[in-house]
Amino acid sequence: MKAKFIRLTLVVAFGVASIVRAQDPLPSWNDTAPKKAIIEFVERVTKEGSPDFVKPEERIATFDNDGTLWAEQPIYFQFQFGIDRVKALAAQHPEWKKQKPFRYVLGGDMKALLADGKSMMALMAMSHTGMTTDEFDEHAKEWLRTAKHPKTGRLYTQMVYQPMLELLAYLRANGFKTFIVSGGGVEFMRCFAEQTYGIPPQQVVGSSSKMRYEIRDGKPLLLRLPEVQFIDDKQGKPIGIETFIGRRPIAAFGNSDGDQQMLEWTMGGSGAHFVFIVHHDDAEREWSYDRKSDVGRLDKAWDEAMAKGWTVVSMKNDWKTIFMK
Amino acid sequence: MKAKFIRLTLVVAFGVASIVRAQDPLPSWNDTAPKKAIIEFVERVTKEGSPDFVKPEERIATFDNDGTLWAEQPIYFQFQFGIDRVKALAAQHPEWKKQKPFRYVLGGDMKALLADGKSMMALMAMSHTGMTTDEFDEHAKEWLRTAKHPKTGRLYTQMVYQPMLELLAYLRANGFKTFIVSGGGVEFMRCFAEQTYGIPPQQVVGSSSKMRYEIRDGKPLLLRLPEVQFIDDKQGKPIGIETFIGRRPIAAFGNSDGDQQMLEWTMGGSGAHFVFIVHHDDAEREWSYDRKSDVGRLDKAWDEAMAKGWTVVSMKNDWKTIFMK
Repeated sequence: MKAKFIRLTLVVAFGVASIVRAQDPLPSWNDTAPKKAIIEFVERVTKEGSPDFVKPEERIATFDNDGTLWAEQPIYFQFQFGIDRVKALAAQHPEWKKQKPFRYVLGGDMKALLADGKSMMALMAMSHTGMTTDEFDEHAKEWLRTAKHPKTGRLYTQMVYQPMLELLAYLRANGFKTFIVSGGGVEFMRCFAEQTYGIPPQQVVGSSSKMRYEIRDGKPLLLRLPEVQFIDDKQGKPIGIETFIGRRPIAAFGNSDGDQQMLEWTMGGSGAHFVFIVHHDDAEREWSYDRKSDVGRLDKAWDEAMAKGWTVVSMKNDWKTIFMK
Repeated sequence: MKAKFIRLTLVVAFGVASIVRAQDPLPSWNDTAPKKAIIEFVERVTKEGSPDFVKPEERIATFDNDGTLWAEQPIYFQFQFGIDRVKALAAQHPEWKKQKPFRYVLGGDMKALLADGKSMMALMAMSHTGMTTDEFDEHAKEWLRTAKHPKTGRLYTQMVYQPMLELLAYLRANGFKTFIVSGGGVEFMRCFAEQTYGIPPQQVVGSSSKMRYEIRDGKPLLLRLPEVQFIDDKQGKPIGIETFIGRRPIAAFGNSDGDQQMLEWTMGGSGAHFVFIVHHDDAEREWSYDRKSDVGRLDKAWDEAMAKGWTVVSMKNDWKTIFMK
């Protein structure tokens, strides 16, 4: 009876082991160098007794959002949300027909709008502040539920990359905590990050506006103010990581110059570490852009990646599938 | 065989159930009203099918630190760290003998130092900024490893409250995520919160200074600057919660007027929620202070607790043990 039990246990154990080994954790990645480098890194830091072993609480992985987890063309999706918000409210604001930047939006002059940083800031302030946190969440969630991407006709939350969803799941299955560290607004990303990426609000680091705490009709509320609190981009990314997470990542993933310092900071850690840059080089299945693009420019970070031997992921060659299934 | 197996399973199951029931999750709490209220709340929000059930990802509990998780008399421990830092560096700075606020520290004039907010700020700036994040961590950890409390002779990390350690563990065992939300410096608290409270760096929210990212000798570093980035106190606490956590707590614990808005914000939530205030009324085993204290003043928040029926924990009557064992 005892022997039989042991035999059965061994059979079950080996069976499970071979199923686990047979399952490809990254099925939407081609068997090219980046996939091999990711798996090799994860195995190295999770193997107890390995010189590169990292304790689970120190397995911090940070992901840029725009262009890394979801697409960012033809314009950052959060800008599109701001533009759509102006259009939705235009009937209540006849004065906007004559006012910058609203008249650019209503007249369809995207070029003038995007060319002028001040216009863009004013548009973002109108659509993101001057309201309570609850009111903002309501608008953003309604937009995410209904707005469609102009090229693909997909919901914006379906413009996320299948290979990156697999990478998030693979890292989490190996004890990593996954964080978003993005130049985008933290309040906007938190409206979909948990459902779409499995990343809870407290693991989303982003740019933020100042707020004011008020009691109105006996109820406390937080009002978003049109003043910048923190910009989580470029040098701001390692600062955001230190402020919000308080621990240096051992893995970081980005796609543009805005991510350069986050990747540098990660590579400067003392233990094992790994980074990659996603290169948008697939005009057919997604978009093709890099050094000269206004959206998600990849220029200085690409040079640093080349100089230092960081992994560069080619969407065209390294990804079997682009968008989530 | 089958009947026997079922009988055995039932015996084991009931055995485990009675062990679990017999184990008191809060043994250092007297069986008074606060303990009953805590347990009743936790059972209500974790019982599936209960109208007050809260999904695990929304079980956010926030704790003030000074005076709630550890003591704060005769002065906030972080101030004592700053003072000790000045003393340690005095030999290298002969000019300090004539300079405010350093001459107060070196001359032992604590009253003058504490009476002057500017002096205190200058002292904190000297001891907390103008250095890299790694350098600061080294000083703070060394101090926490060696400095002793003037009254008890204990290490400062042993000046934490046993009943609160049990509450942290009890909440976590019930699927809560526990956060510190404190007016104290986030970088200082992160040097001991994980080891002492089991709260990892990314779950510590506090006041912070601005930082600068730099490459020095080819290595990236973060420099702490003597400029305030965020003050996580009073109205700042709900703002800090929204900025860092992005979700309203369902439970919050504090001890002073600095916590009033965090407790209000928590009680303003739509689902089940629970808060308490720790009242320092045990002059024999700890300290006794409230409305008139310069450290941890409890005045307005106490009035609000009375008016709204928030639980007030008496250290004298509700806690069997004060400090960690």
